[in-house]
Amino acid sequence: MIRNLSTRRERIAEEIDALAAITEPDRPYTRRAFTPMFLAGRTYLEKRFRDAGLEPRIDAAGNLVGLRRGRKPGLGTIMVGSHSDTVPEGGRYDGIAGVSAALEVARALADQGVVLDHDLEIVDFLAEEVSIFGVSCIGSRGLAGLLPAEWLHRQVETLSLEQGVAQAGGRPAALAAEARRDVRAFLELHIEQGTVLESAGLDVGVVTAIAGITRIEIVVEGRADHAGTTVMGARRDALSAAARLVLAIEALATGMAQAGPHFAATVGEFRMEPNAANVVPSRVEMLVDARAERRADMERFVAELAVLAGAVAAETGVAIAPPRTISDNHPTPLDATVLDVLDEACEAAGARHRRMASGAGHDSAWMARISKSAMIFIPCLGGRSHAPEESATTEDIALGAAVLLEAVRRLDRVLQEG
Amino acid sequence: MIRNLSTRRERIAEEIDALAAITEPDRPYTRRAFTPMFLAGRTYLEKRFRDAGLEPRIDAAGNLVGLRRGRKPGLGTIMVGSHSDTVPEGGRYDGIAGVSAALEVARALADQGVVLDHDLEIVDFLAEEVSIFGVSCIGSRGLAGLLPAEWLHRQVETLSLEQGVAQAGGRPAALAAEARRDVRAFLELHIEQGTVLESAGLDVGVVTAIAGITRIEIVVEGRADHAGTTVMGARRDALSAAARLVLAIEALATGMAQAGPHFAATVGEFRMEPNAANVVPSRVEMLVDARAERRADMERFVAELAVLAGAVAAETGVAIAPPRTISDNHPTPLDATVLDVLDEACEAAGARHRRMASGAGHDSAWMARISKSAMIFIPCLGGRSHAPEESATTEDIALGAAVLLEAVRRLDRVLQEG
Repeated sequence: MIRNLSTRRERIAEEIDALAAITEPDRPYTRRAFTPMFLAGRTYLEKRFRDAGLEPRIDAAGNLVGLRRGRKPGLGTIMVGSHSDTVPEGGRYDGIAGVSAALEVARALADQGVVLDHDLEIVDFLAEEVSIFGVSCIGSRGLAGLLPAEWLHRQVETLSLEQGVAQAGGRPAALAAEARRDVRAFLELHIEQGTVLESAGLDVGVVTAIAGITRIEIVVEGRADHAGTTVMGARRDALSAAARLVLAIEALATGMAQAGPHFAATVGEFRMEPNAANVVPSRVEMLVDARAERRADMERFVAELAVLAGAVAAETGVAIAPPRTISDNHPTPLDATVLDVLDEACEAAGARHRRMASGAGHDSAWMARISKSAMIFIPCLGGRSHAPEESATTEDIALGAAVLLEAVRRLDRVLQEG
Repeated sequence: MIRNLSTRRERIAEEIDALAAITEPDRPYTRRAFTPMFLAGRTYLEKRFRDAGLEPRIDAAGNLVGLRRGRKPGLGTIMVGSHSDTVPEGGRYDGIAGVSAALEVARALADQGVVLDHDLEIVDFLAEEVSIFGVSCIGSRGLAGLLPAEWLHRQVETLSLEQGVAQAGGRPAALAAEARRDVRAFLELHIEQGTVLESAGLDVGVVTAIAGITRIEIVVEGRADHAGTTVMGARRDALSAAARLVLAIEALATGMAQAGPHFAATVGEFRMEPNAANVVPSRVEMLVDARAERRADMERFVAELAVLAGAVAAETGVAIAPPRTISDNHPTPLDATVLDVLDEACEAAGARHRRMASGAGHDSAWMARISKSAMIFIPCLGGRSHAPEESATTEDIALGAAVLLEAVRRLDRVLQEG
């Protein structure tokens, strides 16, 4: 579909192609935070910020922030953005699409000669992806004043996180003092990293919540017997018991996903011992990754998982210790007012849309702690992400940017009505 | 039960305790072939062979053979024995029980002043267990003239198999010339390595066949998707498909085991990729170990496995290549005449017995290629084997030795009737 948009896809394509070229050459697309390649990307972006009429600066947390001053000083800030760092051999669009769309919002406002009442800030958050330091969302946590101070001392080889933030231009010592309290609203565009929009032929997903993530370890203890001499009925096969549990977890999660809002569970790690051809498996360790839009669903899942594990143990004769929760992050509901504004903006921009949850974590989850926040998804090809083949169209990004532009203009009014 | 046996358990206990003491001290019980510890065990056994009135020698294949001459030269040889090498951190009884029982047969004949018509040879085969050279049954293959010549050139660090056989006193160059054709019958006692006898409260299993072993590789190819964003219904989860296949294989093998003679199948190796907490599993490689007493059962299993793999692929949307047979050894039926003699010997010795197949491989499978061969099992505690806790009673070994003694005396007649 050819639309007559207020945003221009060719400017977005230019940015995305330029950033794609700033990659470790033999493993596209790699521009990990805390590397010279990332800083090269930042240098390019800083120029684009200036070209868009923004005043760029690096904040205390190492985020690149570009300001477009509003008409009424003191009203506070509307912020729009995402991140430009990648995973190793990651994609051209994850994060980058959102930074480019945010810049395009600023450019479109300039094209139209519109000055908002609020300040507008475009942001490229530092280190959204899990970096060498093993944690994610450094920039958005830092901006929100929620970066654990002890993380700054994490050390990988000769570099500490504190030094890494400083190399990006941040001032770690000023993090607490400069924690932002003036951000009234935050918007982020991101590729879906799933196939919900693509399957339904939709343009935009209005994200209702960032799912909570809970990781649970299950250990199945069977008995290592001789595979040739131990008759079928006399075994305590840890793999057989684990297979029953894998299928029970899948069935439970599928049922919950059909009955309610976003729920998913995955056995992503699976290790078997002794893993020898002629020995009945004696031990399996599994790690379950569960995502829930509603906390009550996660609590129900964790409880039912324990029941399933007990039932499989009783049925098969293996021992299964009570499932152990390794990490447990609650879901983040996004702001109801901003969600309504985004729905209206989709209608105004002619974007076919639906509401949906995000199964993945995003900077928006941290921004939601200090401001009215929400995000939109745009389709990506086959749901592929964190891989070189990750693909989205600049038409879809431009349409998403038009939705953001419309939403920013509406929020500029709505935030003053509250 | 206290029996008045022709064999004496205290002589057996003395041998088993003495060999148990000849182990790598920090990892009992380790006396692997081609190590100084193994040769120390051989030195001890050679003395026991002499004490039993045997003339010990090392044959071309490195087997320790003790001769008790018969009354009628030219009738040929009845051979009894097993092996004294162990797996790493293996047991006190696997193989050793059979060597000790064979020696006790020779001692009991001497006690009784009996001279057989046939020559009797007691044998400790070289390297029955999988050794550093990655293969098993070196001595019995060699004695039978069935050791592949190219295996002799297998090299591990500075040692070739050829040199290893020579270090044990063998003469690899003479293997072909000295392949035995004079062995009329072979008998072996071995611990069951399973729980059939223990569960049924029996003393002896008369082994009808050494099961065939077929190993089959199955590769499941799914798709690596984001565990948070990919909805349950849109996945191609290789682990989920593999779990279905694991359970289908178990059900098929259990059904076959219930309907016919010995059959077992085990998924002993299982590897998953990318094995990352937040990624839907994209690939599983499994190795199936199947054992069948009847070749027809194995052929049916392999055919049905291909059908199951196809059905799981169709049901789940993953790709499963046709299962690939990695190795395929046919079952070895043992000699019907000798089996009848063993049944009669059990009755005569007062041993409660049943017929059963061996799911594990043994030297008897190679001896069966050149002579009328059969073996008996005695119970072992909980079926544990190839582990330090492997346990059998010297009473049970002595009763098994009494069965062998009775069978040897009967074979000495029966072989002349043929």
